[in-house]
Amino acid sequence: MSEQAEPARLVGPVLVVGSGLVGASIGLSLRRAGVDVHLEDVDNRSLRVAESVGAGTAQPPAAQPSLVVVAVPPNHLGEVVVAALGRWPAAVVTDVGSIKVRPLAEVSSAAPDQVARYVGSHPMAGSERSGPIAATAELFDGRAWAVTPHERADPAAVETIESLVSTCRAVLVPMSPAEHDAAVARISHLPHLLAVLAAARLTDAPRAQMSLAGQGLRDVTRVAAGDPLLWQQILSSNASSVAELLQEVRDDLDLLIRELTDTTPELAPLLARGVEGTRAIPGKHGGPLRREATVFVVVPDRPGELARLFADAGDAGINIEDVRIDHDPGRPAGLVEISVADGAAEDLVVALGDRGWVAHR
Amino acid sequence: MSEQAEPARLVGPVLVVGSGLVGASIGLSLRRAGVDVHLEDVDNRSLRVAESVGAGTAQPPAAQPSLVVVAVPPNHLGEVVVAALGRWPAAVVTDVGSIKVRPLAEVSSAAPDQVARYVGSHPMAGSERSGPIAATAELFDGRAWAVTPHERADPAAVETIESLVSTCRAVLVPMSPAEHDAAVARISHLPHLLAVLAAARLTDAPRAQMSLAGQGLRDVTRVAAGDPLLWQQILSSNASSVAELLQEVRDDLDLLIRELTDTTPELAPLLARGVEGTRAIPGKHGGPLRREATVFVVVPDRPGELARLFADAGDAGINIEDVRIDHDPGRPAGLVEISVADGAAEDLVVALGDRGWVAHR
Repeated sequence: MSEQAEPARLVGPVLVVGSGLVGASIGLSLRRAGVDVHLEDVDNRSLRVAESVGAGTAQPPAAQPSLVVVAVPPNHLGEVVVAALGRWPAAVVTDVGSIKVRPLAEVSSAAPDQVARYVGSHPMAGSERSGPIAATAELFDGRAWAVTPHERADPAAVETIESLVSTCRAVLVPMSPAEHDAAVARISHLPHLLAVLAAARLTDAPRAQMSLAGQGLRDVTRVAAGDPLLWQQILSSNASSVAELLQEVRDDLDLLIRELTDTTPELAPLLARGVEGTRAIPGKHGGPLRREATVFVVVPDRPGELARLFADAGDAGINIEDVRIDHDPGRPAGLVEISVADGAAEDLVVALGDRGWVAHR
Repeated sequence: MSEQAEPARLVGPVLVVGSGLVGASIGLSLRRAGVDVHLEDVDNRSLRVAESVGAGTAQPPAAQPSLVVVAVPPNHLGEVVVAALGRWPAAVVTDVGSIKVRPLAEVSSAAPDQVARYVGSHPMAGSERSGPIAATAELFDGRAWAVTPHERADPAAVETIESLVSTCRAVLVPMSPAEHDAAVARISHLPHLLAVLAAARLTDAPRAQMSLAGQGLRDVTRVAAGDPLLWQQILSSNASSVAELLQEVRDDLDLLIRELTDTTPELAPLLARGVEGTRAIPGKHGGPLRREATVFVVVPDRPGELARLFADAGDAGINIEDVRIDHDPGRPAGLVEISVADGAAEDLVVALGDRGWVAHR
C-alpha cells in the first residue's frame, strides 16, 4: 500500500449528494484541497448546516460535475447512483456506503449502459456522532478507504476515485465489491453483532453484578452503542455474507454449550483458535503486529498529570505506541496503561520510577 | 463503596500458597505494608522467583499463620483450601480464584467442621502476562475485589479478608458466592467467549480482508488473547451459569439468522437492546457514566509528540478522561482520540488548534 504512484489531481466540480457526517466531511476535505464542491440533500436543514460549516455550496454546479459522490443511507444508494448517472452523462459516480454488492447490482440492472462510469468505494471512518455538525476535513486522514471497481468499470473512472481517496488523505485499499462485502462482514458486521449479543445480556443484570465490570467488558461491547437504524440497513444489505458467518458462529456456540453441559468440558481448542484470531489483526501502520509490552502507571485524576507523565516518558526517549486509562472503582486516581515496544518497557518503568511515578509492568 | 469504615489492620504471618502472578503480587502488596509473608508452591522454580522479587520468604512460618491465601489454578482451589484448614487450625483461609461456588461446595463437603474459617474472594485484576516475574505490589491498587462470605462464615474471618483487601489497596465489593459467579459469567466469562467467537472467524480470513480492520475489531477481540488452558478451567468451573447465558445468546442468534434470511430483516429491536446494555456499564470510579465527547488529533509517530500534546491540553486546564491511539494504515502519523467531559471538547479543539495541532471532534 505504501509504494503506489501518486494518482492524478482531482479536478472539480464535485457534487456530493447527502450532507451527513461522511458527505459533509468529504466536502470539507475537498474544499481544503481547493476543489469546487456542490452539495445536495433531500433534508434542507442538513444541507444548510453542511453549507454553513464550509463543506461546499448548495447552489447547483454551473458546469457538468466531473465526479458525483453519493453519501446517502444504505437503503437508497442504488437509486441515487442511478439518478446521478442519468442526470450527469459525463460524470464519474461513486458511493461511499458500507456495502458494495447490492448497490452495484441495482445500478447494473437499472442503468446497464452507464455502469462503466460507476465505481463504488468505502472510507473506513466514522464517529459515534452523526450529521454535518460533526463533519471535519480530517475525518479520513490516514484511514483505509476501499475502492471496489467492477469488471465493466472504465479505468479512467477508477483513477478518478483513487484521486478522491488521495485528496481526502486516506489510504487506498483496492478490492472487488464481493471481497469488500465479505471483508466487512467478517471484520465489522459480525463483531458488531457479537458485541450486541454480549451487551444485550447486561440489560437485565442486577446492579450489584455490574460493580465487578472492568475494561474487558467495555472493550467487547463498545461498538454495540452504534445507531440501531443505520446498522439495521447495513446488516440487511449484507445479509447473506453476515448470515453465513453467523451460521459458523452458531456451530461453535452449539459446541460450547454441548461441552459446558458435559461433565468434562473440552474448550481449549476453540479458545486457542480465538488466540490465533487476535494475532491475525494487523498492527499500527498496516504492518505486522509489533511485539509490545504494557506498563501500568498510577495517575491522579486531575488536569496536568497526564502531561507530566508523557513529558517524563518523552524525556526518556521512549515512543509510546498506545495509551489507555483503565476503570478505577472508588478512587480518585486513574490507572494508565502505556504500550511500548517490548524492549523499552523496563527502561520506561525505571525512568518513571526515577521521576516519582508508581509504575510497573 | 466509598464510605466504609476502615477494616482492622491485617496482622501476619500470612501464608500465600501459589506464587504465580496473583499470589506473588499479594505477597508484594502485604510486604509493602510491613506484613510478614511466607510463600509455598509445588513449583520450586516459581517459588524461588517469587522470593527473589521480594514477595515473601520460602521458609515455613515459625508461628501459626493468621491468614492463608490460596492462589492456585481453579481446578485445585478446593483441595488446597481444605488442606490449609486442616494444617492450620487457627488460621483464616481465603482463595483468590475466578469462581466461588465450586470451591465452597468442595470445602463444605470435605471439611464441614472447619468451613467457618474459609471465606472466598476474587480480586478483579490480572495482566496478559503471567508468573511471579510479572508480579507487582500495585496490581490491586484501586481495583474491585469481591469478598464472598457464605452463611456459616465466622464474622471475624470475613473481617480478616476485608483487611486483606484494604491492605492491598483494592476496593471491597461484598456479594454471595452465587451472586459472584452469576456476575462474572455475565460480565467476564460470556464476553470472553463472544470475543473468542469473533476472533475465531479471523483465522481463515484472506489477508486482503484484514487490511480493512480497525479499532472496533481490536476492541471486540482483545480479551480473546487470554491463556486457553486457564480459561478452560475458569469456564468449566462456572459451567452452568455460563451455559445458561449461552442459551440466551443462542436464542438471540437464531433470531438474527432467521431475520437475516428473511426478505425484510427486522434487527432494530435487538440492536437497540445492545445500545441499552452498553449504558448499563458503570463509568470510571464506579459512578454513573459521565457524558463524554471525543476529540481527534493527528500526532506524528515519534518520541515527545504525545508529551507536547498533553502539555498543551494541560495548559488549557482540561482534564482528559481517556486516550486512545487509533489504527493508522500506511502513514507515519497516529490518530489520537481524547475523551473529555462533553462541555470541554470544543474548548480543547480550540486550544489545540491555537497551538498548531490538527484537532477536530
